[in-house]
Amino acid sequence: MKPNSLNTPLVLVNLKCYTESIGNGAHRIARAAREVTDESGVTIGLAPLYPDIHPINHHYDIPVFAQHVDPVEPGAHTGRMPLLAVKSAGAIGSLVNHSEYRLNIADIEKNVTALRDAGMLSCVCSNNIATTAALSALGPDYVAIEPPELIGGKISVSEANPGIITGSVDIVKKINPAVKVLTGAGIHSGKCVKTAIDLGTDGVLLASSVVKAEDPAAVLRDLVSLL
Amino acid sequence: MKPNSLNTPLVLVNLKCYTESIGNGAHRIARAAREVTDESGVTIGLAPLYPDIHPINHHYDIPVFAQHVDPVEPGAHTGRMPLLAVKSAGAIGSLVNHSEYRLNIADIEKNVTALRDAGMLSCVCSNNIATTAALSALGPDYVAIEPPELIGGKISVSEANPGIITGSVDIVKKINPAVKVLTGAGIHSGKCVKTAIDLGTDGVLLASSVVKAEDPAAVLRDLVSLL
Amino acid sequence: MKPNSLNTPLVLVNLKCYTESIGNGAHRIARAAREVTDESGVTIGLAPLYPDIHPINHHYDIPVFAQHVDPVEPGAHTGRMPLLAVKSAGAIGSLVNHSEYRLNIADIEKNVTALRDAGMLSCVCSNNIATTAALSALGPDYVAIEPPELIGGKISVSEANPGIITGSVDIVKKINPAVKVLTGAGIHSGKCVKTAIDLGTDGVLLASSVVKAEDPAAVLRDLVSLL
Amino acid sequence: MKPNSLNTPLVLVNLKCYTESIGNGAHRIARAAREVTDESGVTIGLAPLYPDIHPINHHYDIPVFAQHVDPVEPGAHTGRMPLLAVKSAGAIGSLVNHSEYRLNIADIEKNVTALRDAGMLSCVCSNNIATTAALSALGPDYVAIEPPELIGGKISVSEANPGIITGSVDIVKKINPAVKVLTGAGIHSGKCVKTAIDLGTDGVLLASSVVKAEDPAAVLRDLVSLL
Repeated sequence: MKPNSLNTPLVLVNLKCYTESIGNGAHRIARAAREVTDESGVTIGLAPLYPDIHPINHHYDIPVFAQHVDPVEPGAHTGRMPLLAVKSAGAIGSLVNHSEYRLNIADIEKNVTALRDAGMLSCVCSNNIATTAALSALGPDYVAIEPPELIGGKISVSEANPGIITGSVDIVKKINPAVKVLTGAGIHSGKCVKTAIDLGTDGVLLASSVVKAEDPAAVLRDLVSLL
Repeated sequence: MKPNSLNTPLVLVNLKCYTESIGNGAHRIARAAREVTDESGVTIGLAPLYPDIHPINHHYDIPVFAQHVDPVEPGAHTGRMPLLAVKSAGAIGSLVNHSEYRLNIADIEKNVTALRDAGMLSCVCSNNIATTAALSALGPDYVAIEPPELIGGKISVSEANPGIITGSVDIVKKINPAVKVLTGAGIHSGKCVKTAIDLGTDGVLLASSVVKAEDPAAVLRDLVSLL
Repeated sequence: MKPNSLNTPLVLVNLKCYTESIGNGAHRIARAAREVTDESGVTIGLAPLYPDIHPINHHYDIPVFAQHVDPVEPGAHTGRMPLLAVKSAGAIGSLVNHSEYRLNIADIEKNVTALRDAGMLSCVCSNNIATTAALSALGPDYVAIEPPELIGGKISVSEANPGIITGSVDIVKKINPAVKVLTGAGIHSGKCVKTAIDLGTDGVLLASSVVKAEDPAAVLRDLVSLL
Repeated sequence: MKPNSLNTPLVLVNLKCYTESIGNGAHRIARAAREVTDESGVTIGLAPLYPDIHPINHHYDIPVFAQHVDPVEPGAHTGRMPLLAVKSAGAIGSLVNHSEYRLNIADIEKNVTALRDAGMLSCVCSNNIATTAALSALGPDYVAIEPPELIGGKISVSEANPGIITGSVDIVKKINPAVKVLTGAGIHSGKCVKTAIDLGTDGVLLASSVVKAEDPAAVLRDLVSLL
């Protein structure tokens, strides 16, 4: 499978930096993702911390995204992760401009272009309809719309504010119909995922409901149950 | 004159923080701008340092932009300039995302929206065609296209890379035709300005060629000479 | 009076960016500060927004600090305030590294040195005893110790945590006894100020209790009442 | 060996993000470091990119430092590396405040304290004598003095400016004698290392001369040859 043709719908899990997602925790979630992918046929991608990109890709054969990539060329930078480093570790793509790691517009464009040139996938995060419009103009593979006030909560954006999703889908169709849209923020059940798809998006971006679950496989199984 | 209807073409001079543009220097340039505006009828706006916004607006009746506005509400912030502060000082608009003060996309959108809601003008700076496209989707009053490598130089963007200007004009027309486009970077003569207009833009954004001139009025007179 | 010899104790009011401190609001507070200085003989300094530095210094003859200064030389910077600009506007000193505008250590050192070289006063903000120790090693005129969790609150640091004040005074005496110490965070009454002085500090840094007061002169009068 | 008792002198190699230090490149350098450590008995530590911390520690039994650690608790952060993540990957310490990744003073203090509490080593980078003084007051294990203008060059700080080294050693002795000092910037030969030790420091921090070498073992062998 070419990186740039992940099947739709996509369930993309951002592992963030929770105690539950560091090191062994990442393996636990990857094992669950592998299992539910095999059962359901739904594509489940993971965005682990940098040290876990290689082992997760290597052991579980799961599409792995970086959580961030620094918009710099390889060179004299300390503590940074240039694209070459995340690619070399085995990532097939990267989140860009997550609301917890916002970038300026020049750097977002640089990352989207560099990922495209490297044959990798870009998933750029937006926070409302206007920024979704702006970011879709850059031609990323995915725009994930995540209203910051709903991130980490128990109310999914598809329940709380379906208008922001349909508005995003409409504006992306108008500006750059090749861009896929993911629904993010508060996604925690099969019903949320189904609504996200029904509203016209191509999948979901989520984090805490899987990462902090006692049984991540059970949560993932529920998430894909109505697809 | 309503702020949101500055005449086209617009010559907008960013005073930056040069020794020549601080305090009395700002007055020297404002006097020149007033004089050349009166002679030529061309609208010349200035973007001085914060302390000079009020005196320049007050004494010379020139359209004054802030160089930046912090995307925060008034409150417990130290060393910041919320929109209310630049408006209260007399600015009718603000530069946003200059390449020397880049903002993340959520903050750019916040500033553009807040300026619009306050009846003020936004001039958002972009660095290439892709970011021009993205930024025009936010609906600012102006997008100023300034390839960073040409800023402060003696070669204007209209000579060095006319394709970036026509490409920007074309993409803005497609995405949001209400947005005006300014040509920036390296503008230093009447010929540069004329080319910028001929390529379809609505004016120019420039800095050093006026600020560091021995005779700013002479330079401004030359800049508007072919309009 | 030489800037570098402000009388002790010092009451330094950071106007921040409150609605109540922008433009006319700054004048209202400056008038009160002038009045209470004249009555009491206590030195009251103000740190207003950039546009208000000049008018407040000019009209009220009060020691004016900038809230921040950008660690850059004059030049091609947009939206920044180099030292020359705050000095030219009339500031005799600047806050540095307020918890609402933290700087890296190299830039703090640059600012402290540049202010000293310009004959201006530096007031560097720290957040605990360890950072007070570190910052005093740079030789600023003042270190203001402000535990962030108490800023803007109704409990002064001198009540909530006198140990942090005495610990700061002790460590500064050991590392650099020429540095004066200010007590910050939550200061709101004459009793707070008296305690701050009794604990061995040279004055107070405060904000909201004066800025948001209906009658700033009454609050200032109370603040200096036990000195 | 307890992490907090690395033998002196220490040769610490910051791998940065060079093409030559990513992935397989890191293994090449680690192999060389292992070899030269075994031959010479000198402690050689490496600070690789995040994905290489685990494999290098695991395969070569070399003291591994992170290049940076984000001053956040584990939780809802995207693209960050909290201390738990670098520790879990196998790092025994971390660089802090490298001139290519500067931190504010509150965050430096937070990192130094958190590393100490976790039984890990902190190596804080300074850029001149004044910042060395300030940073030593925080009680890190090491302060590495690296004048930014010499980083990556062919002239070592010990040749170009021995006064900055001896000045740093003296001030650290005065403020916090438990802190070890490393000489950084431009170190490229056994003679540089010997001078660094002769000037009173406890080792060196270096990068490009090893990372970009055709034969890293030969360079490392030369570096330790006069110890």
